Amino acid sequence: MILDELYSELTLKTGAKMALVVMDGLGDIATPEQNFLTPLEAAHTPNLDALVRRGCAQGRMTPVAPGITPGSGPGHLGLFGYDPIEYQVGRGVIEALGLGLELKAGDVCARANFATLDAKGIVRDRRAGRIPTETCEKLCAMLSAKIKKIGDTQVIIKAGKEHRFVVVFRGKGLEGPLTDADPNREGFAIPAVKPRDPKNARQKKMAKVIADFYKAALPIIAKETPANGFLMRGIAHQPNIPVFEERYKMKPACLAVYPMYKGLAQLVGMTKVEGPQTIKEQFERYVKEYHNYDFFFIHFKYTDKAGEDGNFEAKKKYIEEFDAALPILLGKKPDVLAITGDHSTPCAMKGHSWHPQPVLLHSKISGSDKLERFTETGANLGSLGVFDAKFLMRHMQANAKAFDKYGA
Amino acid sequence: MILDELYSELTLKTGAKMALVVMDGLGDIATPEQNFLTPLEAAHTPNLDALVRRGCAQGRMTPVAPGITPGSGPGHLGLFGYDPIEYQVGRGVIEALGLGLELKAGDVCARANFATLDAKGIVRDRRAGRIPTETCEKLCAMLSAKIKKIGDTQVIIKAGKEHRFVVVFRGKGLEGPLTDADPNREGFAIPAVKPRDPKNARQKKMAKVIADFYKAALPIIAKETPANGFLMRGIAHQPNIPVFEERYKMKPACLAVYPMYKGLAQLVGMTKVEGPQTIKEQFERYVKEYHNYDFFFIHFKYTDKAGEDGNFEAKKKYIEEFDAALPILLGKKPDVLAITGDHSTPCAMKGHSWHPQPVLLHSKISGSDKLERFTETGANLGSLGVFDAKFLMRHMQANAKAFDKYGA
Repeated sequence: MILDELYSELTLKTGAKMALVVMDGLGDIATPEQNFLTPLEAAHTPNLDALVRRGCAQGRMTPVAPGITPGSGPGHLGLFGYDPIEYQVGRGVIEALGLGLELKAGDVCARANFATLDAKGIVRDRRAGRIPTETCEKLCAMLSAKIKKIGDTQVIIKAGKEHRFVVVFRGKGLEGPLTDADPNREGFAIPAVKPRDPKNARQKKMAKVIADFYKAALPIIAKETPANGFLMRGIAHQPNIPVFEERYKMKPACLAVYPMYKGLAQLVGMTKVEGPQTIKEQFERYVKEYHNYDFFFIHFKYTDKAGEDGNFEAKKKYIEEFDAALPILLGKKPDVLAITGDHSTPCAMKGHSWHPQPVLLHSKISGSDKLERFTETGANLGSLGVFDAKFLMRHMQANAKAFDKYGA
Repeated sequence: MILDELYSELTLKTGAKMALVVMDGLGDIATPEQNFLTPLEAAHTPNLDALVRRGCAQGRMTPVAPGITPGSGPGHLGLFGYDPIEYQVGRGVIEALGLGLELKAGDVCARANFATLDAKGIVRDRRAGRIPTETCEKLCAMLSAKIKKIGDTQVIIKAGKEHRFVVVFRGKGLEGPLTDADPNREGFAIPAVKPRDPKNARQKKMAKVIADFYKAALPIIAKETPANGFLMRGIAHQPNIPVFEERYKMKPACLAVYPMYKGLAQLVGMTKVEGPQTIKEQFERYVKEYHNYDFFFIHFKYTDKAGEDGNFEAKKKYIEEFDAALPILLGKKPDVLAITGDHSTPCAMKGHSWHPQPVLLHSKISGSDKLERFTETGANLGSLGVFDAKFLMRHMQANAKAFDKYGA
């Protein structure tokens, strides 16, 4: 807290251009099964290699704290320079933002999905057979038409993909987090939500609103097949996060494809630049938008997906695809460029992990660690050391000469 | 604190087996006198080398904080995952636990030793000529027979080795720490103890109890030779340390030879497994107890002793002895294995130091830093970086997949 205040006091507006390029789940581990090579080490990355040889500082980042495996939320908040333990974001909020809903302070959001209930109210299919998106939109429209308010609380319902939707509750005296209205497996009834903190009156009110919402909503879709019910999870309010543009004195843009990452960027006040679907298109759009923003968050999802699938060859291939597109970005090189992941997703683990992700930082004054490539093992030797991800933004600011000297 | 709470929330019970193997005072420094080799570098360690090549993460650990040289207490509390600045343990408590006394919450313990006083009560020999253990036991029995209580405070006296013993005060409203009843050199009288915090009423009461204890005890041994007096140090109560088994959801065992380390392990609630005297026997016993516990703390003392003696060749030899025994442990390899020290004891310094000790972490998902050996200089290149020793347990938990994912 005190440190953040110091950073704020020292922060200057420079107009320098920065790009934070995130290969999701980039980090990996060396295992005997892959001849002790990580995908990043095995990949052919001539453009990253050339960048490294032009002079980069490297290091590894602890996403949250030693040993802690982050979800995408904490992973990205750290990258954006916010302490992911201090600022906790519920899944409902992230989903709502990802669907383009404009949240207001105090809004409570729930991640919901349509489900199939039997005559006794027992959950028989938690995803209602993954109904088509059009069906989901129709059901959401039915609910929205009949439920505008629960008591004095405004209700906003928005369809997502397939069986997914979000519900935003806007009103006075509401707060999360609550327990889930989801048995988390089939064969059980939908549990009533409860305050996470039983003494919190605002959470109690919120739990009552959710209960009343269920009473009003379930009869509306009771005759539908297969989606005659719904579950709600991650019920929490939007945290009070300092706005990116004020914090760093930079105008930020988000170039992401997937809703969650757009949502996370929007949470800290980044402008979503919509359209590009591939990393090549994202870099091309970056070039076009170069003069419109100071800071670009560019998100590449597929390294994480391949890691989650345990598909080493695919992860390697996506890194090579990324590398092939990189010259577009480098054609209009930002003053400060960071390339990293939001966490590791080792193929051997088929999931996120706590292993520190490698990071590469390039600017005219980044210095050079005299490494040949950008890899996990190489990054161990870098001048940035192993550091908390929340400090990456501070390194980037420093490389943009965006900090006043501290003290005489 | 908040971080510890987060770790607690995320901690899962997995049943995975872990071993924390401590070569006391392992870390050392490279000096020109030894051709810039540390004992660990100079030693022939084929088994550690082979383990490293199978895939280990390495790093170096700051025992307490940069520049701080720890005693064994803080060194081990850090290894056990407790912040050694937050949890302070008096030497009396450690000695009492080491002698097998079962302490209760609120007990105040003093480390004591028999001394020789002259007719005027001046300390002439602070160790009473290092009387044999049998004499010490006889003297303690004499005191115990006549002193059961001081006021409403129960007094428990237990002999240690040679001139050493401990006194435990059990009663209401007692607290440490107090100043020592020890002039710390010969030629002076035994000073009266004082509260460390003059405003603390419980410490005041405790100081009165100690004064009354002296009044009652000194006449009982006044005619003995050479031990006609005693000194008391490290007078403090047992700190309230979260129990290991609850904190980590693992059943822990201690395989240590020396009382202090058993005491430290007992302080956090580990079960002492008694019997083994050599590292070979300790590893053999580990194999036998494998199914009875989840976590094994295995302590090897002799590297520290050699360091304290400034005996480079001996420290090297003990490391080689350790290495030779290692295959016994590896024959029944735990899911997560950490090998490290509790601090450095550089031969060139003949004492503990602050230099970060090297640490090796091995599991199926530790990844590999692709190093050839386990050494101080090599560990500098590892993926764990330089980190606070209190986080080693968190790394071990992560490697056992004993943490839930944090956030969505």
